[in-house]
Amino acid sequence: MKQVFIICLFMMVFLAQTHAQQRKRLREYGIKIGVLPTGKLNAITDVAGVQVGQVTLNKGTEVRTGVSAILPHAGNLFQEKVLAAVYVGNGFGKLAGSSQVQELGNLESPIILTNTLSVATAMNAVITHTLQQPGNEKVQSVNALVGETNDGGLNDIRGRHVTEKHVLEAIQKAKDGEVEEGNVGAGTGTICFGFKGGIGTSSRKLPPSLGGYTVGVLVQTNFGGVLQIAGAPVGEELERFSFRQQIMEKADGSCMIVVATDAPVDARNLERMAKRAMLGLGKTGGIASNGSGDYVISFSAHPGLRVPYESRERTQTVTLLRNDEMSPLFMATIEATEEAILNSLFKAETIVGKDKNKVEALPLEKTLDILKKHHVIKP
Amino acid sequence: MKQVFIICLFMMVFLAQTHAQQRKRLREYGIKIGVLPTGKLNAITDVAGVQVGQVTLNKGTEVRTGVSAILPHAGNLFQEKVLAAVYVGNGFGKLAGSSQVQELGNLESPIILTNTLSVATAMNAVITHTLQQPGNEKVQSVNALVGETNDGGLNDIRGRHVTEKHVLEAIQKAKDGEVEEGNVGAGTGTICFGFKGGIGTSSRKLPPSLGGYTVGVLVQTNFGGVLQIAGAPVGEELERFSFRQQIMEKADGSCMIVVATDAPVDARNLERMAKRAMLGLGKTGGIASNGSGDYVISFSAHPGLRVPYESRERTQTVTLLRNDEMSPLFMATIEATEEAILNSLFKAETIVGKDKNKVEALPLEKTLDILKKHHVIKP
Amino acid sequence: MKQVFIICLFMMVFLAQTHAQQRKRLREYGIKIGVLPTGKLNAITDVAGVQVGQVTLNKGTEVRTGVSAILPHAGNLFQEKVLAAVYVGNGFGKLAGSSQVQELGNLESPIILTNTLSVATAMNAVITHTLQQPGNEKVQSVNALVGETNDGGLNDIRGRHVTEKHVLEAIQKAKDGEVEEGNVGAGTGTICFGFKGGIGTSSRKLPPSLGGYTVGVLVQTNFGGVLQIAGAPVGEELERFSFRQQIMEKADGSCMIVVATDAPVDARNLERMAKRAMLGLGKTGGIASNGSGDYVISFSAHPGLRVPYESRERTQTVTLLRNDEMSPLFMATIEATEEAILNSLFKAETIVGKDKNKVEALPLEKTLDILKKHHVIKP
Amino acid sequence: MKQVFIICLFMMVFLAQTHAQQRKRLREYGIKIGVLPTGKLNAITDVAGVQVGQVTLNKGTEVRTGVSAILPHAGNLFQEKVLAAVYVGNGFGKLAGSSQVQELGNLESPIILTNTLSVATAMNAVITHTLQQPGNEKVQSVNALVGETNDGGLNDIRGRHVTEKHVLEAIQKAKDGEVEEGNVGAGTGTICFGFKGGIGTSSRKLPPSLGGYTVGVLVQTNFGGVLQIAGAPVGEELERFSFRQQIMEKADGSCMIVVATDAPVDARNLERMAKRAMLGLGKTGGIASNGSGDYVISFSAHPGLRVPYESRERTQTVTLLRNDEMSPLFMATIEATEEAILNSLFKAETIVGKDKNKVEALPLEKTLDILKKHHVIKP
Repeated sequence: MKQVFIICLFMMVFLAQTHAQQRKRLREYGIKIGVLPTGKLNAITDVAGVQVGQVTLNKGTEVRTGVSAILPHAGNLFQEKVLAAVYVGNGFGKLAGSSQVQELGNLESPIILTNTLSVATAMNAVITHTLQQPGNEKVQSVNALVGETNDGGLNDIRGRHVTEKHVLEAIQKAKDGEVEEGNVGAGTGTICFGFKGGIGTSSRKLPPSLGGYTVGVLVQTNFGGVLQIAGAPVGEELERFSFRQQIMEKADGSCMIVVATDAPVDARNLERMAKRAMLGLGKTGGIASNGSGDYVISFSAHPGLRVPYESRERTQTVTLLRNDEMSPLFMATIEATEEAILNSLFKAETIVGKDKNKVEALPLEKTLDILKKHHVIKP
Repeated sequence: MKQVFIICLFMMVFLAQTHAQQRKRLREYGIKIGVLPTGKLNAITDVAGVQVGQVTLNKGTEVRTGVSAILPHAGNLFQEKVLAAVYVGNGFGKLAGSSQVQELGNLESPIILTNTLSVATAMNAVITHTLQQPGNEKVQSVNALVGETNDGGLNDIRGRHVTEKHVLEAIQKAKDGEVEEGNVGAGTGTICFGFKGGIGTSSRKLPPSLGGYTVGVLVQTNFGGVLQIAGAPVGEELERFSFRQQIMEKADGSCMIVVATDAPVDARNLERMAKRAMLGLGKTGGIASNGSGDYVISFSAHPGLRVPYESRERTQTVTLLRNDEMSPLFMATIEATEEAILNSLFKAETIVGKDKNKVEALPLEKTLDILKKHHVIKP
Repeated sequence: MKQVFIICLFMMVFLAQTHAQQRKRLREYGIKIGVLPTGKLNAITDVAGVQVGQVTLNKGTEVRTGVSAILPHAGNLFQEKVLAAVYVGNGFGKLAGSSQVQELGNLESPIILTNTLSVATAMNAVITHTLQQPGNEKVQSVNALVGETNDGGLNDIRGRHVTEKHVLEAIQKAKDGEVEEGNVGAGTGTICFGFKGGIGTSSRKLPPSLGGYTVGVLVQTNFGGVLQIAGAPVGEELERFSFRQQIMEKADGSCMIVVATDAPVDARNLERMAKRAMLGLGKTGGIASNGSGDYVISFSAHPGLRVPYESRERTQTVTLLRNDEMSPLFMATIEATEEAILNSLFKAETIVGKDKNKVEALPLEKTLDILKKHHVIKP
Repeated sequence: MKQVFIICLFMMVFLAQTHAQQRKRLREYGIKIGVLPTGKLNAITDVAGVQVGQVTLNKGTEVRTGVSAILPHAGNLFQEKVLAAVYVGNGFGKLAGSSQVQELGNLESPIILTNTLSVATAMNAVITHTLQQPGNEKVQSVNALVGETNDGGLNDIRGRHVTEKHVLEAIQKAKDGEVEEGNVGAGTGTICFGFKGGIGTSSRKLPPSLGGYTVGVLVQTNFGGVLQIAGAPVGEELERFSFRQQIMEKADGSCMIVVATDAPVDARNLERMAKRAMLGLGKTGGIASNGSGDYVISFSAHPGLRVPYESRERTQTVTLLRNDEMSPLFMATIEATEEAILNSLFKAETIVGKDKNKVEALPLEKTLDILKKHHVIKP
């Protein structure tokens, strides 16, 4: 009897996974966000040189967390820094390393995303990684840029299960090409609009007449509001949204947003791009609630803009985009952010975690029906 | 012959105006934005004490501009300042007075909106107004908060036709109750999403369980992007949106946003509310383009928070909302901003101005059809 | 009898002026500030291309005010903008135009300094100036950068005696070479550390091994604190400093600081230079009191960094100083600001203004004695 | 022979220490900074409730580092947060936790200072401390505020010798009363103006007529410039200052500044106080060089302003100082910062560390001679 039960359980898990594996990205359902074309992979890795590595911790019944690493380039980031900026959408979060990026306009380490109580561990790992890289033997100062959202609803966050090893592994695994989305890496235990959130990505490629540049976005979604998909009021129609019960909800949730571009943009204009990512978040129905740690990290992967750690030259000659050319990049950032958030929801799967808490994935069938009704998916 | 022509012209103007007067606000067409209820008038004046006065300059063929004044209360603002904040969405604009509001956390004058090249004239008028108010006989310093957008497409802006008298008149006409929208005051000559923009307003009233506070928003819309109405892709379907021709457009456009609340919120949290207004702009399809002067001015009209210019007391005792209670106010700000922008488009009328430039109003019939197709208006 | 009195009065005025004309700059008394060498003129005009023009209004018994204009270059500033930044030391002031400079990182107009209630008039003049410049016939948007301090103690500020004509005259008179200091231009009616303040200037020239760049500073001094001259406690020894009576003084005073350099520095690093100017103010004993409008405007006059209003190119190639090279420029900014403030005090003369208010110049004899005692002036 | 050598070595060390113990604080030599009276202990602990704990790591020949913990009050800081602000003087540093303080205006953990590469370890310790405090059993989010300067010149910083245990010990040892200064805690291995730096502290107590409030400052000094003591040019006369050789020096150095007050000041005005601390740094000759991580953390220890983590009330009633009353607190902050920095130099002792690097203490005898010559110490 017990054995049959167990077999049934396994079959259910198997079927659930199979079903889960069938969850597709937004565009595969015929949904389009915005007016600009995507890059080849519709991922942050469409920006040449950018790499992503993720480690997922899905242990026992209580651990649902992980690490996502984004590398602006595959070389020695400390020796060849990239121009970068940080914009704080809402600062109820623990992003480490932001003030140095804002002051110097550059980034000297991989970007790490993880859970709230593992930021310090990830910093230590980034320091270890940097100190050990060939060429950095004399380095005595490392600015680790580590962001987080709080997965404590599904994950035993107080247990601090992320180790330095996990972080180093995520960095080492980083590669270009497709990016895993949903319940993966730092998105393993996150919740978004009341559904399972996670990692999502998207990109835009401007037409040549607008510069031909690519903007790629990766998000870790863990926030609330009133979900809209391509404008359709999905949250309302599914009857799940913030303050629906007209009671004050405990402030929580956050969204980490990483914006990469190959456009030759300096730190000031990268900050302006970062600021626009919040408009993309708004378009999904996010409200940047009081308890949200909504941070946008942006960088230019343009090879000609790398900042050498040391130089014999007093000056550096750079070719930079004029302010006047920024608007299409702003639009690309908004669209790619919106789509990356939605991809995280489409790809994330129902999960059971800490204290047997269960968070349902966005119900695809109902959602697609709503999208058809609202003509987002053409009949 | 000529007389017939003139009569015909008058009739056309009359009919056009009649038609124009029939343009209604968003909700009158059965369109709903967001999930929170509006205030009684669905206007910034739902916040007790707030007054609005507008002067429209529609002279000859070339002058299409004006002034809108928003008064946080009807008393002596210099003697009884209100807590206030300014958030810069994109700073390509000429907002005067922002740094003092940001430093001191309060506002001591009416808020004036006008055209770009008339900011200085409006400042002079506010100074005149303040110096002349009874009780201000010894005042030697006035911080005038004056915003603008550029109506140079329809208005002979270089002619600087706004005079101090117009501004003083707008202040004097300020009253509570309904607020005129569309081609009025500072919105007379503005353009939004390629259609005629203008002044718009909206409000939200939180349910008692969330505090019962009111948030009111007034906007001067003059910006671009890809228009969405309640999420529906109206701009795309009307084939009018930014970069549709895939060519770089001359940077322009702006949106001034004024957010009022009766919630007892200090300057830090007012700034956070102001920041959220940009998410509302994003939801209409705005992209805060390079050439945009997108500023949000927010203030609390709560009578208990007024800051006396002079006081015998070293301290002031205030009852302030906790951070934890802010999220519903954020949501209210987003929704009211989105709806205020859309109201400006619904109420604005086709206009011919400078150099015979004609800007069409949002075509209501087609728009309503699109909204029906997308189930925004229930069939 | 009356005639004798009038003659005596004239003689006194004459003698006072004669005496006043003998007031010299700091260095002429053997006082040295800091460790870096000055430029040739020890003035902001040591930065190649920078021009200064001033108009002094010294009418009747009540008018003691004026205008100072600083031009980053002699050409069409709107068509050839310069990289610039604004840092707000304390924002109780009315600086117009700051947000656009901060957003775009550039400056498109002369910088005007005047009194608090004349900022708007000066803005209108800058707009007039810009609209009328050859080549600007189609310009519809001008960002006028106008700062102020409050000379209401000596000047009938409510009378608003500065006209657009005065401002245009200051712009037209702008020239390179020596800069008038003391009771001149926007410094005509200002008060600093309880003594007569005014306009002051200074510069530093880095040795070739540190880049050879020049930093020039011009200040309009109108603030309080505890005066120190080259470190010596002059304010204390003269028994005149803030809170000496241990009573709360009415908040007032301000310092406008303009920092120019020929170093090829972008807006981000210009903002960092601007921030350092406040350390120079601190070294004179300034405290940036609550009522102070302490703003620093910085720009690079390097010809290779000019930003064309319009361009056929999408990008601009620039040669910029590396972050690592900034520290000597920071030191130069601090030193030149300190010395410019002190020069304003050394050159300003005793004045009688509004309501027969008299403000004494820094008493040179006593001051020099104190400086000798403290070994600032070598015996 | 060898034994004699060792005995001599021990005696030298003993004598050196004895000598070192004789180093006194600034005021004990008759030197006075500013015009305001100090608090009783002339330490940050003059602010009621504030506690300081320090752990010094002085192991072998290579380890010269440590931890300093500042507690705004002795209770559960997470449950009873204090109003706080962070100001970034120059952001080349790794301060963790700043953005949440800036967003929410409060602080929920002890403030930890340590070395650059140990920030993450200290964060982990603060998280451990907070999670384990009685009453915090359900806490899932902790914002640890951890600052640093780089002691890599004297300390094997790459060895990361600070452990969580050291940090927890510093927190546990925290107490009111006198504060150890010089080569102690986070100041063990720091260098300032080319001499041995370290921890320093000072305070000011306003006279009752100005509010009677206390301002206390604690600093970790590790920066360069041109040392001035009470205005006297000590750095120049000792021929040791930045760029003296007219060559570019490797950017480094930092100053962490903690400002405490019992004045009832909200986050906005705390930020303004924090900003003034940099003027105090400037008065010692600091230039906030490119490589400097100069951060100011300020908080109000006023018991009436504590923010409960959870509350049944929607609002909190607070009695706050008016803007107009801030100036004396600004002055107090400037003076106490200046004196705290100088105390760190007076108390720090000559040290030999990593790679046998030796850093001399400020030579007291010569310094006092210079101060006498400049009449800082009355003859």
